[in-house]
Amino acid sequence: MTAQTATPIQFYFDFISPFGYFASLRIDDLARRYGREVEWTSMLVGVSVLKVMGLPPIVELPLKGPYVINDAKRYARQHQVAFERPSTSPTSRPVEAGRAFAWAKGIDPAAAKRLAGFIFSSYFVRCLDISEDSVLSACVRKAGLSWPAFEAARAEGTPAELLRRNVDDSIQRGVFGSPYFIVDGEPFFGLEKLPVVEEWLAAGGW
Amino acid sequence: MTAQTATPIQFYFDFISPFGYFASLRIDDLARRYGREVEWTSMLVGVSVLKVMGLPPIVELPLKGPYVINDAKRYARQHQVAFERPSTSPTSRPVEAGRAFAWAKGIDPAAAKRLAGFIFSSYFVRCLDISEDSVLSACVRKAGLSWPAFEAARAEGTPAELLRRNVDDSIQRGVFGSPYFIVDGEPFFGLEKLPVVEEWLAAGGW
Repeated sequence: MTAQTATPIQFYFDFISPFGYFASLRIDDLARRYGREVEWTSMLVGVSVLKVMGLPPIVELPLKGPYVINDAKRYARQHQVAFERPSTSPTSRPVEAGRAFAWAKGIDPAAAKRLAGFIFSSYFVRCLDISEDSVLSACVRKAGLSWPAFEAARAEGTPAELLRRNVDDSIQRGVFGSPYFIVDGEPFFGLEKLPVVEEWLAAGGW
Repeated sequence: MTAQTATPIQFYFDFISPFGYFASLRIDDLARRYGREVEWTSMLVGVSVLKVMGLPPIVELPLKGPYVINDAKRYARQHQVAFERPSTSPTSRPVEAGRAFAWAKGIDPAAAKRLAGFIFSSYFVRCLDISEDSVLSACVRKAGLSWPAFEAARAEGTPAELLRRNVDDSIQRGVFGSPYFIVDGEPFFGLEKLPVVEEWLAAGGW
């Protein structure tokens, strides 16, 4: 399979997932080294996927909850990534942000990636509430997109419908967490799979 | 912290965990490169930990169950590790094997590691039922330990008590899955954390 004919790497994330945020900072560079494109898709772990799985929010799980909070902070220290735990976490609702991203992707995928970057940093660096229009509109504008255009689309329900479809599709494909990657049809779950994705790309699979 | 004064790396595993098996093949070599010892402790994910967490067996979870089965097979292909899915999985009971290991560790930790290796390969390579005395006794003998001595200890309930204490201690320390490592007080969960454990050892922490 050559870089020209290879399908894009699929990258699924939830805007309130720290590990999705960390992965978003690395996946495009990693793919580029192997001549691959990345398609980003926002989905909803807490709001949708965990209900399908019958699980509570991960941070509320005994033993694992405290572990993942420490793990995220430790990753940020190791990789010197700006990272704060938002005070609204884990009750923050990523739905509006996910809708804005899904809408933006339909207009301009590159702008949508910039938008995702601004949303992630608003949430995980500046600790803003990304469910607020005031926060989201600033991100949309900084990404070079039109907030009034988003508002018009929202009035017609388009972003909600796009996100719903993305969430349904991702669950259909087996996506159960953030980050989640699909490379050449193979699923890879979790930030720690990035080196394994790289080994896969380098070897052309196993 | 020098290698001389550093505490051993703690390695927790469940005998029916494929990822615990894979980690058991790598952790001692990894630690040795940084002058560190490894203490192995068998615990019980399905039998004990998941009950504390209120979770079903992982392989029975929607979406994640099929994922982990594929992930284990893929790891084995990538790393050319002998690996079969035992026909008794996931109903196999690792309790007797865990008890034998806990007993062996009290007598001779090096022999206990050999025993663990034979138990893992009996289960994951030869697909034998490791809850059977016929299988377990062969492993005990090959590890250079006395099966009659184990039987005598078992009649007094010592191995069961040792395993119970190990399971309680591990849950107390936050261990919620297999493999799980504690290095310099820091917890690392999952096979994919081995490279991160190595980065931790190389850097002396973050």
